[in-house]
Amino acid sequence: MPTSPLEATTRHVLAIDIGGTKLAAGIVSDTGALIDTDRTPTHADEGPEKVVERILDLSRSLLRRNVVPVARVGVGCGGPLDTTLGVIQNPPNLPGWIDFPLVRHLHDALKLPVVLDNDANAAALAEYHFGAGRGTRHMVYLTLSTGIGSGLILNGELYRGKHGNAGELGHLQVKYDGETCNCGGRGCLEHYASGTNIARRARELAARHPESLLARSAASLHDITAQSVLMALQAGDAVAWDLWNDTLDLLAAGVASIVHTFDPERIVIGGGVSNFGPLLFDGLRERVQQRSMPALMGGVEIRPAEFADNVGVFGAAAIALHEPQEVLA
Amino acid sequence: MPTSPLEATTRHVLAIDIGGTKLAAGIVSDTGALIDTDRTPTHADEGPEKVVERILDLSRSLLRRNVVPVARVGVGCGGPLDTTLGVIQNPPNLPGWIDFPLVRHLHDALKLPVVLDNDANAAALAEYHFGAGRGTRHMVYLTLSTGIGSGLILNGELYRGKHGNAGELGHLQVKYDGETCNCGGRGCLEHYASGTNIARRARELAARHPESLLARSAASLHDITAQSVLMALQAGDAVAWDLWNDTLDLLAAGVASIVHTFDPERIVIGGGVSNFGPLLFDGLRERVQQRSMPALMGGVEIRPAEFADNVGVFGAAAIALHEPQEVLA
Repeated sequence: MPTSPLEATTRHVLAIDIGGTKLAAGIVSDTGALIDTDRTPTHADEGPEKVVERILDLSRSLLRRNVVPVARVGVGCGGPLDTTLGVIQNPPNLPGWIDFPLVRHLHDALKLPVVLDNDANAAALAEYHFGAGRGTRHMVYLTLSTGIGSGLILNGELYRGKHGNAGELGHLQVKYDGETCNCGGRGCLEHYASGTNIARRARELAARHPESLLARSAASLHDITAQSVLMALQAGDAVAWDLWNDTLDLLAAGVASIVHTFDPERIVIGGGVSNFGPLLFDGLRERVQQRSMPALMGGVEIRPAEFADNVGVFGAAAIALHEPQEVLA
Repeated sequence: MPTSPLEATTRHVLAIDIGGTKLAAGIVSDTGALIDTDRTPTHADEGPEKVVERILDLSRSLLRRNVVPVARVGVGCGGPLDTTLGVIQNPPNLPGWIDFPLVRHLHDALKLPVVLDNDANAAALAEYHFGAGRGTRHMVYLTLSTGIGSGLILNGELYRGKHGNAGELGHLQVKYDGETCNCGGRGCLEHYASGTNIARRARELAARHPESLLARSAASLHDITAQSVLMALQAGDAVAWDLWNDTLDLLAAGVASIVHTFDPERIVIGGGVSNFGPLLFDGLRERVQQRSMPALMGGVEIRPAEFADNVGVFGAAAIALHEPQEVLA
C-alpha cells in the first residue's frame, strides 16, 4: 500500500475519536471542513470488541450517507498506545483494553489504511493544521483538563521522542519539594493545576474556610468542582482568589519553562480549564511575561484553542491527513 | 559557494572556541581526531578587532604547521548571537561586543566558509558526534557551570526553536514561588544549582553555621566555592550534606522535567559541577528514577560528558563538520 494513497484534489478522511464515555466520528476534508459527524456512548466496560462494533456501526453509517471518497482513517485515543504497532496498551479511561490491536480490527473491517495516535497529539495536530496554531512552525499545545496533556509541534512536525512519550508537560516539576503526583513524580504541574486538582484543592480550602463563598457554592464540600471555583471568583470571593492566584503562579512557572525550553512561536491552551477565559489567559500572560527572558518572551503568543468538545474528531482527521505513520500497510 | 564544500576522504576543519578568558583553536578530523591545538588569552576588554587579530594569528599558525587541507571553519562563542547573520550580539562574557559581524571578519581573512553557534549548542554537538551522546538520536546535553546551559538533539538534529534560543534549561522553574533569577524569571534551576549559585548558597549557609566544616573550609566566607562544598561533603560535614541533598532534589526536578518533556535516550551532563562525580551522578540518578514516570525513565541514561576543558574546540569542530547553516556563502 503506498504511503500517500490520497490522490483526489480534495481529500477526505474518516476521523474516529475514542473517549472514555463517548465515541465520535466524522468525515473531514483536507481543508478542515467537517462534512458530517455522529456520536454514541462508548460503554468501555463492555470490552474492546463490543466497542469496535459500535465504532464500525458509526463509521459505516457515515460512509453510507456521504458520497465523498474516503481514502484514510485517523483514530485518536487516550494513551498509552503504540502508534507503530497500532495497539492500545492500557489507557486509564479504557479499563481492560490491554494490548488491544485496534488498528488491525479497523483495517480488516473497513479495508482502508488506519493511522492511530494519542488524544493529546491529535488535539495538537488539530490546532496546528486547522485551529489556533495555523501559520506557525513551533507550537506547544497544552490541555488543562482532568489531567494536563500536551503535544509538541517542532519544526512543523509532531515531536514524539525516543519511545513516543514526549510532551508529558503536565509533569513538569514546578514545586521541587512538593507533593507526590499520580505519575510517581513530585511537585508536578498537573498535581496542582488540572481541573480535577483545582477542584481537590478548592475542597481542601473550603473545608478550612466554611464561611467562604467557595464553600457555600455547592451543596456539600464533595460537590465543589472547578466550575464552583470559577463562580466564586466571579463573585469576588477572597478564598477562591487566593487559590486562583496560586494556580496562575504554578501554571506560569510551567509555561515560562516551556518558553525557555522550546523558544516557540505560540502556546495554545485548551481543555475545560480554558473556559475560565480572560481570568486564565490575562492572568497567565501577565505572569509568564514577568517570569520569562525578555528575548524569548518577545516572540511568543499564548492563545486559547479554537476547538472545544469536537477537538477529538478534528484531531483524528489531522492524524489521517498529515501523519506519515501507517501500520499494517 | 557550494553548501557542502568538503570532498576529501578524510575531512578536516579549523575549530575556534572564543571564551571570556581564553581563545582556543584546533584542527580536527571528521572522525573527531584532534590533529593540533593551541590557545592564548582573550583580553576581551581590548575590543573585538584586537581579539579577531589574535584569533587569526592562532589560526594561521595552526594552518601553517599542519599540511592537511582545511575546508571549513567552525566557531563556538557565548551567546546571544545570530547564527544566520554570523553576528555576536552582546554576550555577558565579551563586554562591548555589540552586534559584531565576527563571521564576516573571519571569512574575509581566512577565505574559508565559517559557521558560528553558541557554546552550549557547540558542546552538545561535540558530545553527540564524538562523545557521550554517540549512537543516540534524542539527547539532551546539560552543562552545570557558572550558569546552566543546554543543547537539544532531537531526531538527530540540533533543535533551535523559532528564534534560535531553545534549550535554556537552566531556566526551568523548579520552585514556582522561589527567588528571582538573573534572567528575570523565578525559581529557576540555575539560580540554585549552577556552580556559582551552589557557592552562593554555601556562603549563606556557612554564615549561619560558623562551626561547620563548610565554614572552615576556606580562609573566609568570601572564599567559599563549589570546590569547598565538595571537600566538606567528602569530609562528611552535615551542613554541606544538607545543601547538597537539597541541590540534588532541585536538579532531579529539572532532569525529571526534561525526561517528561523529551522522552530522550540519554542526558549528558558536563560543566564544573560534574566534577562532583558519583556524588552528583549517583545521587541524581536515584532521585530522577524516583520522580519520573516509569515508562519514560526506563529508557533514559544519565551520563557524564566525555569532554572537559577541551569541549569548546571539539564543539566548534562539530559545528563546522555537521551544521548545515552557512553565512556569507
